[in-house]
Amino acid sequence: MNQNEFGKAHTVTQQKPEGSGRPEPRIDIAALGEQLLGTWAQERRTSRDLAGRPEFQRIEGQSMAEHRERVLGQLSLLVDEGAIQRAFPEALGGSNNHGGNIAAFEELVTADPSLQIKAGVQWGLFGSAVLHLGTAGHHEKWLPGIMDLSIPGAFAMTEIGHGSDVASVATTATYVPETDEFEIHTPFRAAWKDYLGNAALHGRAAVVFAQLITRGVNHGVHAFYVPLRDENGFLPGIGGEDDGLKGGLNGIDNGRLHFDHVRIPRINLLNRYGDVDAEGTYTSPIASPGRRFFTMLGTLVQGRVSLDGAAVAASKVALQIAVTYAGQRRQFNATSPVREEVILDYQRHQRRLISRIATTYAMSFAHEELLEKFDGVFSGASDTDEDRQDLETLAAALKPTSTWNALDILQECREACGGAGFITKNRFTSLRADLDVYVTFEGDNNVLLQLVAKRLLTDYAKEFRHLDAGVLARYVVRQAGNVAINRSGLRQLAQTWADTGSEKRSANFLKDAQTQRDLLADRVRTAVAEVADEMRGAAKLPPAEGARVFNEHQHEIIEAARAHGELLLWEAFTAALEEIEDADTRQVMTWVRDLFGLQLIEKDLAWYQMHGRLSSQRARTLGPYINRLLARLRPHAQDLVDAFGYGPEHLRADIASGIEAERQDEAAEYLRRERAKPGAVVDEKILVARRKAAEKAQRHAAKAAAKKGRKVGA
Amino acid sequence: MNQNEFGKAHTVTQQKPEGSGRPEPRIDIAALGEQLLGTWAQERRTSRDLAGRPEFQRIEGQSMAEHRERVLGQLSLLVDEGAIQRAFPEALGGSNNHGGNIAAFEELVTADPSLQIKAGVQWGLFGSAVLHLGTAGHHEKWLPGIMDLSIPGAFAMTEIGHGSDVASVATTATYVPETDEFEIHTPFRAAWKDYLGNAALHGRAAVVFAQLITRGVNHGVHAFYVPLRDENGFLPGIGGEDDGLKGGLNGIDNGRLHFDHVRIPRINLLNRYGDVDAEGTYTSPIASPGRRFFTMLGTLVQGRVSLDGAAVAASKVALQIAVTYAGQRRQFNATSPVREEVILDYQRHQRRLISRIATTYAMSFAHEELLEKFDGVFSGASDTDEDRQDLETLAAALKPTSTWNALDILQECREACGGAGFITKNRFTSLRADLDVYVTFEGDNNVLLQLVAKRLLTDYAKEFRHLDAGVLARYVVRQAGNVAINRSGLRQLAQTWADTGSEKRSANFLKDAQTQRDLLADRVRTAVAEVADEMRGAAKLPPAEGARVFNEHQHEIIEAARAHGELLLWEAFTAALEEIEDADTRQVMTWVRDLFGLQLIEKDLAWYQMHGRLSSQRARTLGPYINRLLARLRPHAQDLVDAFGYGPEHLRADIASGIEAERQDEAAEYLRRERAKPGAVVDEKILVARRKAAEKAQRHAAKAAAKKGRKVGA
Repeated sequence: MNQNEFGKAHTVTQQKPEGSGRPEPRIDIAALGEQLLGTWAQERRTSRDLAGRPEFQRIEGQSMAEHRERVLGQLSLLVDEGAIQRAFPEALGGSNNHGGNIAAFEELVTADPSLQIKAGVQWGLFGSAVLHLGTAGHHEKWLPGIMDLSIPGAFAMTEIGHGSDVASVATTATYVPETDEFEIHTPFRAAWKDYLGNAALHGRAAVVFAQLITRGVNHGVHAFYVPLRDENGFLPGIGGEDDGLKGGLNGIDNGRLHFDHVRIPRINLLNRYGDVDAEGTYTSPIASPGRRFFTMLGTLVQGRVSLDGAAVAASKVALQIAVTYAGQRRQFNATSPVREEVILDYQRHQRRLISRIATTYAMSFAHEELLEKFDGVFSGASDTDEDRQDLETLAAALKPTSTWNALDILQECREACGGAGFITKNRFTSLRADLDVYVTFEGDNNVLLQLVAKRLLTDYAKEFRHLDAGVLARYVVRQAGNVAINRSGLRQLAQTWADTGSEKRSANFLKDAQTQRDLLADRVRTAVAEVADEMRGAAKLPPAEGARVFNEHQHEIIEAARAHGELLLWEAFTAALEEIEDADTRQVMTWVRDLFGLQLIEKDLAWYQMHGRLSSQRARTLGPYINRLLARLRPHAQDLVDAFGYGPEHLRADIASGIEAERQDEAAEYLRRERAKPGAVVDEKILVARRKAAEKAQRHAAKAAAKKGRKVGA
Repeated sequence: MNQNEFGKAHTVTQQKPEGSGRPEPRIDIAALGEQLLGTWAQERRTSRDLAGRPEFQRIEGQSMAEHRERVLGQLSLLVDEGAIQRAFPEALGGSNNHGGNIAAFEELVTADPSLQIKAGVQWGLFGSAVLHLGTAGHHEKWLPGIMDLSIPGAFAMTEIGHGSDVASVATTATYVPETDEFEIHTPFRAAWKDYLGNAALHGRAAVVFAQLITRGVNHGVHAFYVPLRDENGFLPGIGGEDDGLKGGLNGIDNGRLHFDHVRIPRINLLNRYGDVDAEGTYTSPIASPGRRFFTMLGTLVQGRVSLDGAAVAASKVALQIAVTYAGQRRQFNATSPVREEVILDYQRHQRRLISRIATTYAMSFAHEELLEKFDGVFSGASDTDEDRQDLETLAAALKPTSTWNALDILQECREACGGAGFITKNRFTSLRADLDVYVTFEGDNNVLLQLVAKRLLTDYAKEFRHLDAGVLARYVVRQAGNVAINRSGLRQLAQTWADTGSEKRSANFLKDAQTQRDLLADRVRTAVAEVADEMRGAAKLPPAEGARVFNEHQHEIIEAARAHGELLLWEAFTAALEEIEDADTRQVMTWVRDLFGLQLIEKDLAWYQMHGRLSSQRARTLGPYINRLLARLRPHAQDLVDAFGYGPEHLRADIASGIEAERQDEAAEYLRRERAKPGAVVDEKILVARRKAAEKAQRHAAKAAAKKGRKVGA
C-alpha cells in the first residue's frame, strides 16, 4: 500500500452551503484530529504506532491454534514495549495512569481485536482483579508475574448457567478452619466457569468468583486467586474444556473450568472488601452485602469502558475505508453519458455513510467523557460513591450504544463496498466478526440497559417523593446520583409545539440545539415517568405480581434507557463543539451534530408525534431537512473521516489505497481514446435511435410532400 | 445429539387467550409443517435428507483450501445422488422441474451455504446460462459435462468495475470474420471479471458476458462459452487471481479472470437471443437492444429466487435453535426466590424472538408464491412477457427483504443466546457470515429495490395518463405488468381514521385484516405518488437535472419499495391463512399474521401519523397491543418453530439439544437438596434482614415498655 496514494486519494468539490453567499467552510483536519485524540493523545499515538507494526497485526487465514499462539507472543511484545504497565502502581513499574492505559489499550483493536481482548483478559480483568480486589500482599506476590506475563491468567466469573447475573454464580468457596484453606467447588455442570480467555490453554492461574461460605453463612460472591496449571497441565482437582472455534476473536483461548474440592490457602482470598480470619470469622468494611457486591464489581468497570472505546476505534477505521472508496467508486451514469456517478453522490449512499460519520463523532466525544470520569474515579481525583455510581451508569448506557452502533457501522460499510467489502483483506468482515461478541460480553447490552432504566426510575422516584418507592426499590440497583434529564426545556417546547410555521421556519426550529436537547431529554423523561406511573399501582402487589407489571413495560423502559444513552452522546457532541476554535470547523461540525441529533429524532419520530411533541406538519419536514444536511456535508465527508487519523498501516484495505480511483481513471482514459478513434465502434442503441429519427423525418417529409402535392393539385 | 431429547425438550404452558372463555387453541404442528413445505414438499424432504447427512455438512475450522476441496467433492456427491438434474431437459436426464429444483437446492443451505452457492454457480448460473442462453448444439455439447461436473465452470458476469450495472461491463467479444472467431478481451484492469465462484481453482470453462462487437457495431452484452483451463492450468491468453479469504462462503474458490485477445469459435456465442453469421451479420429475435438485454438477464432470475428461499431456511434454523434455548434457559429470579425465570417469559425476549418468528412465516409463504410464479414461467405454463416481468419485480422485491431479514434474525438469535450464541458449534455465527454476501450479490439489495421503485413509478404513471411520462420513462426499466397496490381500501380508511374510540376498539381496528392491508398498501402508494408528483415538474429539465431531482428522492423511493416488499409478504401470509383447515391452527396463525402486520405498521408508525393515517391516540395503542399479542403467542412459540420441521441433524446446535434444560434441572435439584439439609448454609443477606427485623422488634418492645412505664408512673 502506498502512503502517498492514500493521502492524495480524494479531492473535495467546493460547494456553497445552501442559501449562503459565504465561501464553503473547510475543516481544519489536523486540529479536529487532535481534539478527537483527547486528553490521552500521546498514549493513543504511542499505541497506534504499535498497532501499525506488522508484528502486532492479525494474519488472516491462520488456524485457531496458530492465531492463539501468535496473540500470546504479541502479549509478550507488549510487555517488552512497556505498553501494559500504565495502570499499575508506580512501585511495580507502572504509572497509575488509568485513563491513558485504557486509551492506549483500545487502540490495539485496529491491529487485531483478539490482541485487544486477550490483553484485556490478562491485565484489565485478571491483573486488575488482583490489583483492585486484593491487598498489598497479593500485589507483591502476583502482580510482577502478571505484568511480565510469567503468570498468564483467567478471569473466572461467568458460569455456563450464569452470565449477566453474577450474584447467582454457583461455584462455592467454603472455609475449612482445620487447614486454614478455602475449598473451591463446582457443584454441578451449570456452575462450570465458561467463555474464559486464557482458560483453554495458557492460563497458569485464575481469579475465581465464588460464593464465600464460612461458619455456615454465605457472604456472597468474592474473588479468589487459584493456581490452575503448572508445566504438566491442570493441577489436581481442576479440569476444563476448550470452547473451540468462536464467531470471532479466535486468537483467544476461551475455555471452561471446573473445580472438584480444590483447596487454596486462606490468604488467596482477595480480601480488600471482605476477609476471613483463621477462625473463620468474616469481616468487611462494607456492612451491606448488596453494596459490597456492587462495590467489588464496580472495580471492574474498565472492561466496559474499554469496549466502548474499541467500538469507536473500529467504527472509525471502517468509515475511513468505506467513505474513501465511496468517493472514488463510480457506478451508473445518471447525469452524464460518458462518466459514471461517484457513489457517494447518491442520496441513499449519503444516508448510509454520512449519517454514520455523525454517529461515530458522537460516540467518540462521549467515550472521551466516559474516560475522563473513569480516570477521575480510579486515580482517586474524584472518587466519591456518587462518582462511582455515575461512572457505572454512564458505562452501562454507553457500552450498549457504541457496541451496537459499531456492528451496524461495520455492516453498512461492508455492504456499501459491495463484493469488495466481503473480501477479508478489506477488513470489515473480520472486524465485525470479532466485535460481534462485544454486545453480549462484559454485560449483555439488554441487561445493561435495564440497569440504566432502573437507575432512571429510581432517580425519578426520588424526585417525586409522593411516588410509592416500594415496588421501585425492588428493581433498583443503586441509590444515589443524578441524571441528565433536562426539565427546563419543557416549557419552551410547549410554546414551540404550537408554532407550525413554514418549512423554512421548521428547519430553523429543528437546527436549534436547545430544541434538539429538549426533544431528546423529554423522550427519556416522559417514558420513565409513564412506566413509573404504571408501576405505582403495583406497589401494593406481592413481589411476583410487581415483577409481572414491570415485565409488561420491559421493552418500553429498555427503549427509554437506549434513548438516554443517545442523549448522552448528543450532549457530549454538543459540549465538544464548544471546544472547537476554528470557525469553519465549528460550522461544519455543528451541521454534523445537527445531523446526529435529527437522525435520533427521526428514529423516534413516531414517539414524538404520539406524544404531541411534534406536529405531523413539522414531522414531515424532518426527512427532507436531513437530506439537505447530508448533501451539505457531502463535500466534507472525506475530511471528516481523515480527521479520525488512521493511516494506511491501520486501514490495511486495498479499496482505501487509491487503487479504485486509478482503475476508474484508466478505464475512462481508455474509453475516451476509443471514442476519439476514427471508425470507432458505435452502439446498436444509437443506430436504432438514429434509424428511428431518420424514419420519422422521412415520414414527415413524405407527409409534407403529400400535403404540398395536394396543395399543388388543389 | 439425542433426537429424543430434542423432541421432548419443551413443554407448553396452557394459557387462555385474553378475554376468552374457550380453551387455549393448539397448533397442529404436522399440518402446518406440511403447508410450509409447500408445492414441492417431496423435493424439499429429499434435499433435507441429504443435508442431514454428515458428508454434506460443513466441518468448522477447516482451512480455506480444505473447505474448497470438500465442497467440490460434495458437488460430485450431489451428482451421484441425482440431486442436481431436476431443472435440465428430460433428454439429458433431467425432469424439467424448475420449482422443485430450486426448492431442493435452497434446502442445502442447512448443510453448508458454501455447498448451496457452489452448486448454484455450477448448475444455477453456469449451466443455466448454457441452457437458457444457448441453443440445441450448445446443450448437446456441454450440458452433459456440466451436469456430471466433468466441466466445472464459472459465471463470468461481474467485473471489478461493474457489479450491479451489468449493461456497462467492459469486456469485449469482437467478431473476426477472417477466422470465424470471437476475440474476448479485457481492455483494462477494471474490466477484469471478479468474485466468480470456480474461477480461482476449479473452473474448466466459463460463460463470459461481454459486449458483442461485429462490423463496427456494439450489440450490447451477450454470453460466450470460453474454455479456461486444461489439466495444465490456464489456457493461453487467460489469467487470473484468487480472491482469497472472504467474510464467509470460503468453501468456494472465488477469483478474478482476465482475457488477452483470447480467440473462441464463433459458435461459442450462446445465441438464443442474438446471433452472428459467418459474414459478421448480427441478428436477433428481439429488435430492441434494451428489451433483448433484459430478456437475457431475465433467464437468470433463479439466482435471486433461490437466495430468497435459502434466507428463509437459514432463518428457520436460527429461530428453531434460539427459541428452543429461550424456552429452557433461566436467568434472574424476578417472580420466585427459588427458581429463575425462563428467558422467553421476558417481554423484551418475546419482542426479540417471537416477532421474528412472525416475519419468518411471512417470508416463507411469500417465497412459496415466488417459487410458483418462477415455475410457471420456466415450465412455460404461464410464460407471457408480463409474467416474466412480474417475476422479475417480485424477485427484486423479495430477495432484499428476506436476505436482510435473515441477517437480522441470525444476529438477534445469536445475541439472544449470549456467549453460547457466539460459539461456532451453535451455528449462528457461521450462517450469518456466509449469508452476509447474500444482501449484495445476485443484485445488490439497494439496487434491486431501486428497480422495484422504478416499476412502481411506471405503473403509477401509466395509471394516471395526465402525468408527463418523459422523466419517468428515463428511469423505467420495463414497461408492462400490474402491481399490488390496493386502492379500494382508501375510502374505508378515511372513514375509520376519524374513529378514535376506546383502546379496545382501537385494538379491534388494528386486528382487522382489511385495515392492515389498507394501511400497508396506502403507505406504498402514497409514497410513490408523492415522488411521481415531485418528478413531474422535472420532466422539462435536461437529463442531468432530471437525475438530480430523482436523486433527491432516492432514499424515500427506496423505502417505498421496501414497504412494497413487506406488503407482498403480508399478502402472502394472509392468503396462506385461507389454506389452513384446522381452526385452532388458523386462530394462532392469524395472531401471528396480525403480529407481523402490526410490527410493519409500528416500524413506519411515524409515516402513518405524518400522513394522517393514524391518530396519535390510535398510534399509542399499537405498542401495548403488540405486547399483548406477544404474550398470547408465548405458549405457542415452540410449536411455531417446531413446525419449521428441521431435525437435530439440521440444527446441529448443543443449545437446542435439551442440554440446557438438563443443566437447569440438575442445578435446581442440587439446590433443593442443599436447602433441605439440616444446618444448611444461610445467606448473609437473610441474616442481615432477620437482625434488622429483630432490632426493630426490640426497639418497639423497648418503646412499648417505656410507654407502659410512663403509664404506670402516671
